[in-house]
Order: sequence, then structure tokens, then C-alpha cells
Amino acid sequence: MILVQDQLKDQSEVRIDIEDRGYQFGDGVYEVVRVYNGQYFGMDEHLVRLERSAKEIQMSLPYPIEVLKRRLEILAEANDIEDGHVYLQITRGVAERTHQFPLQPAPLLVAYARKSPRPLSKMKKGVTAITTEDIRWLRCDIKSLNLLGNVLGKQKAMDAKCDESIFIRNEVVTEGSSTNVYIVKNGEIWTHPANNFILNGITRQVILELAKEEGITVHEETFNKNDLMHAEEVIISSTTMEVTPVISIDGKPVSNGIPGKVARTLQEKFNERIAQLQRVKN
Amino acid sequence: MILVQDQLKDQSEVRIDIEDRGYQFGDGVYEVVRVYNGQYFGMDEHLVRLERSAKEIQMSLPYPIEVLKRRLEILAEANDIEDGHVYLQITRGVAERTHQFPLQPAPLLVAYARKSPRPLSKMKKGVTAITTEDIRWLRCDIKSLNLLGNVLGKQKAMDAKCDESIFIRNEVVTEGSSTNVYIVKNGEIWTHPANNFILNGITRQVILELAKEEGITVHEETFNKNDLMHAEEVIISSTTMEVTPVISIDGKPVSNGIPGKVARTLQEKFNERIAQLQRVKN
Repeated sequence: MILVQDQLKDQSEVRIDIEDRGYQFGDGVYEVVRVYNGQYFGMDEHLVRLERSAKEIQMSLPYPIEVLKRRLEILAEANDIEDGHVYLQITRGVAERTHQFPLQPAPLLVAYARKSPRPLSKMKKGVTAITTEDIRWLRCDIKSLNLLGNVLGKQKAMDAKCDESIFIRNEVVTEGSSTNVYIVKNGEIWTHPANNFILNGITRQVILELAKEEGITVHEETFNKNDLMHAEEVIISSTTMEVTPVISIDGKPVSNGIPGKVARTLQEKFNERIAQLQRVKN
Repeated sequence: MILVQDQLKDQSEVRIDIEDRGYQFGDGVYEVVRVYNGQYFGMDEHLVRLERSAKEIQMSLPYPIEVLKRRLEILAEANDIEDGHVYLQITRGVAERTHQFPLQPAPLLVAYARKSPRPLSKMKKGVTAITTEDIRWLRCDIKSLNLLGNVLGKQKAMDAKCDESIFIRNEVVTEGSSTNVYIVKNGEIWTHPANNFILNGITRQVILELAKEEGITVHEETFNKNDLMHAEEVIISSTTMEVTPVISIDGKPVSNGIPGKVARTLQEKFNERIAQLQRVKN
């Protein structure tokens, strides 16, 4: 069952119009929220970000966030999701095609919930990455449906038989094609500041909290490709990938090519956060 | 009637899947082709560009260009279009959502034809524009569905009660939110070179030909905002707007605030090209 506006429907019943502005302009925003043990993780933070993304493109939501939250819970239950995720997007709706906003926009919300396992093997072994030029627009802070730059970056990694592309803009490491990026230097963490060049990941926000709790200094400052290639550790994070160590970049091992201590610490602490959800539930 | 892959259907019968990559990633390309007197204008050039756009995002077309051309002719006839346009887009099709390309992509083509008048009044009187920062990605040469930067630019112009946003990237004038931009200086034309920062408009290509036929020197070279604000003439062009003079920018008149000689000459020559279509038809 899929959520369309305020109703649960069979996917086969759902018909998106060819003149939905999401289809013709990528004119919309989205979120992916993880479900662990039948509970949403970080839902409030995701919904705050969704509201912000919509506001930044001057799009209203079809109904209030609190109502959406309740409906997404019904959606996860209706699909019997224990471990999985929900994908939701809101477009500016159907209108005759012109670039400017329609005079009477009718934003359309679609959401579906799927079972999906945690990437435990990749988190344990680590993943491989390449570096790629960041060709995306200058509002990467908006979680919009304009994802072709991310798509092409991810595909480049696949073509190189790697897991992720790490984007470089004017020598500076911004983020991955679908992840945030961190390096460890002298036991401290560096990650790109949350400005218009990156998406401020919900998992990123959790990681920065966890690092502080552990007394690990975090620098929300830019670093360059040279720093990346000579880091003690490189870590990527996302709602789907959680906290994952990167063990090689452009074919060169990161440090000695095995996951490092900071990654392991953050993974443990992240696991504890997930376990807390379980306790809240019981 | 709408063209979906190889079939004409009623729009109400057409159902786009929520997991079409066009809907979730803007993962697709498009074209808009003008119909004058029941004849497509520049169809071959549009189809060459469509093929190039698809190739640049490593997407195959659902069937050969020659077949598409024939079907678009049937589409225009079925909709009885004398003066109008066809909109066509091809997405990478339906697949479970992951950034990388699907292993077996099934590209989906959708096209519709609509009656639409030429913007004769705007072409005659000229239009107004504002300047706006160009925040788009670095592959504006691809006519992709990632148009949110263009959408926001156009809306800014509307909010300022103007017709178009002229984009500036690092001091350089690139193009308009849905048009190419030209300035006239000492009777000669300057326009941004056709590289990754602009879409090489079909109307742009025609204009450059017409200018050469008229003995007007054309510089495909970058120019900056200061050049724009002090130009003898400013012109925008697109499939929809044809050749349109800009008479004010950021509230300041261009020259004496009325359409200039070069714009008028290009409009006349462009009209002759359209009239040729009529002669070919009869």
C-alpha cells in the first residue's frame, strides 16, 4: 500500500500525470526515513528538513507535518515494516507546463514503505570510493528531486567497480553522491560545513552528536583532496549506509586499508541509538 | 491524444509510475519543437540534440530517431496542430529506486502536441528582465529534466513583474532561465559560447546563421554584467520566444528602452524562415 495525499492505495491504482511538475522539472523535494524494529529513526528531524526544503523552493506542503507523521506511521504498519525505510516526495503538482510556479499549485505527496536490510557487511568490511568532480547546482542543501548529478556520480563509481563517488568542487571535498563524508586526522574529525554545497544529513547530525559525547573533536570545516587521500580514516554516512568506513579511494588504500578506530566507535554508538528505539518500543 | 512509446493514447489513460526515474531523479531529457503552419520547425536539429542529451547521460532511446520523427508527425496531425508545439521527454524508465542506473533500463517516451500562439506582442514591444545568480549545475548543455534552477530563476522574474531572468555566473552572463541571451555592441553580436554553461538553443543556431547571412559579425565569446547593462541592444531567443528584444534589465532601460535594429532585422529574417516552411508545404 502506498500513501497518496491522505489515502492509502494499491500501487497499481496510482497514476502520476505526465504534467506533474515533478516529472517535467524535478520540481519537488523528498526524504528517506529508516525504520528499525518497526520504529522510525529520526522522523522529527527528517520532517523538519522536509519542511525546510519545501520552503526554500517556495512550495507549500499539502497538509501539516504532524498529520504527515501520523500517516507515515500508518503506512509503515500497513506494510508490516520491521526493518526498512519509507520514501516520500512532494511535488508542486500538476499544471500546464511553464517554468514559473502555477498560480494555484496543488502539491502532491506520494510515499511508500519497503522492507530493506541494514548494510551490515559493508559497514563491517568498509567500502571503496572514487573521487569525481562535483558538477551539481549550488543549492545542494535542498533535498530536491534534481538528482541527475548525484545519479551520474554514483554510476561513475559503479563503472569503476566502487561503492561511492566522493565529490570535489574547486579542490574542496564536499560530500558523496548519496552520503556525507568525514576524514580523521590526529584522531579528530573533519567534515564539510552544512552550507549550500552539501545536504546536512540527519545521520551526519547524529554522528556529530555521538562524536561530541565521545569527546572526539569535530571540525565542521572544508578540507581538500590531499587531506582526503592522506587521512587516517575516511567515513561516509547516510540514512541507508549509516556509518560506513571507506577503505580505498581511487584505488589507493586509506591508511592500512582496514576500517579505523573512530569509525568503529561511531558505529557502536550508532547501534546503541538504534537499540534505544527498541527499548522505547517495549 | 498523447504519444507514449509507440502508441497514441488519451491523456486520461496514461499512467506514470511513481518509480519512474524521471519522477524520482529528474533522470531524463526533453525537447520542445515548434509547429508553424502545420509543419515542424527545425525538427532534425531538435532530434540531433535529443540524441546528444541522451548520450551525455548514457541513456539509450526507446527506438530510432527516424521512427520518432515519423510518430511526432502523426501526433501533430492527430491533434490538428496548425500553430503550436510538441513537448517530448524520455526518462530512464521505471526501476526500484537506487541512484545508479538500472541494470536493464526501459526508457520511456512521452510526447504531447498543443496549440499555442506565437508571442507576437512581446516580440514587437520587447520584454523586461532581471539579472539573477546562475546556481545551476555544470552541464547546462544537456537538455535534462533537472530544471529547478531554471524554475526558481523564472519565478524570480515573475515576482519582480518581469518576463525573464538573465543568469550571471562568476560575473559572466550565461543565458536566460529559458532562453539564450545576446548583446549588441558597435552593431556586432556577442553571445556565450556553446559549452557546458549554456544550452545551445536551436533558435540560437538559426540566429547565428541569419546574422552571418546579413553580414552581422557574431562573437561567440563570454561577456559580463557590465557589458549587458551598457549594450546597444539585448536580445533573448528560444523555441517559444523566437527572437525577442529586451527593453529593460533590473529596472534600467536598455539603450533608449525600445527594440533595436539588430533585433528587428533578425526577426524579419526569422519570419522569412518560417514563411519558407509554408512554401515547402504548398
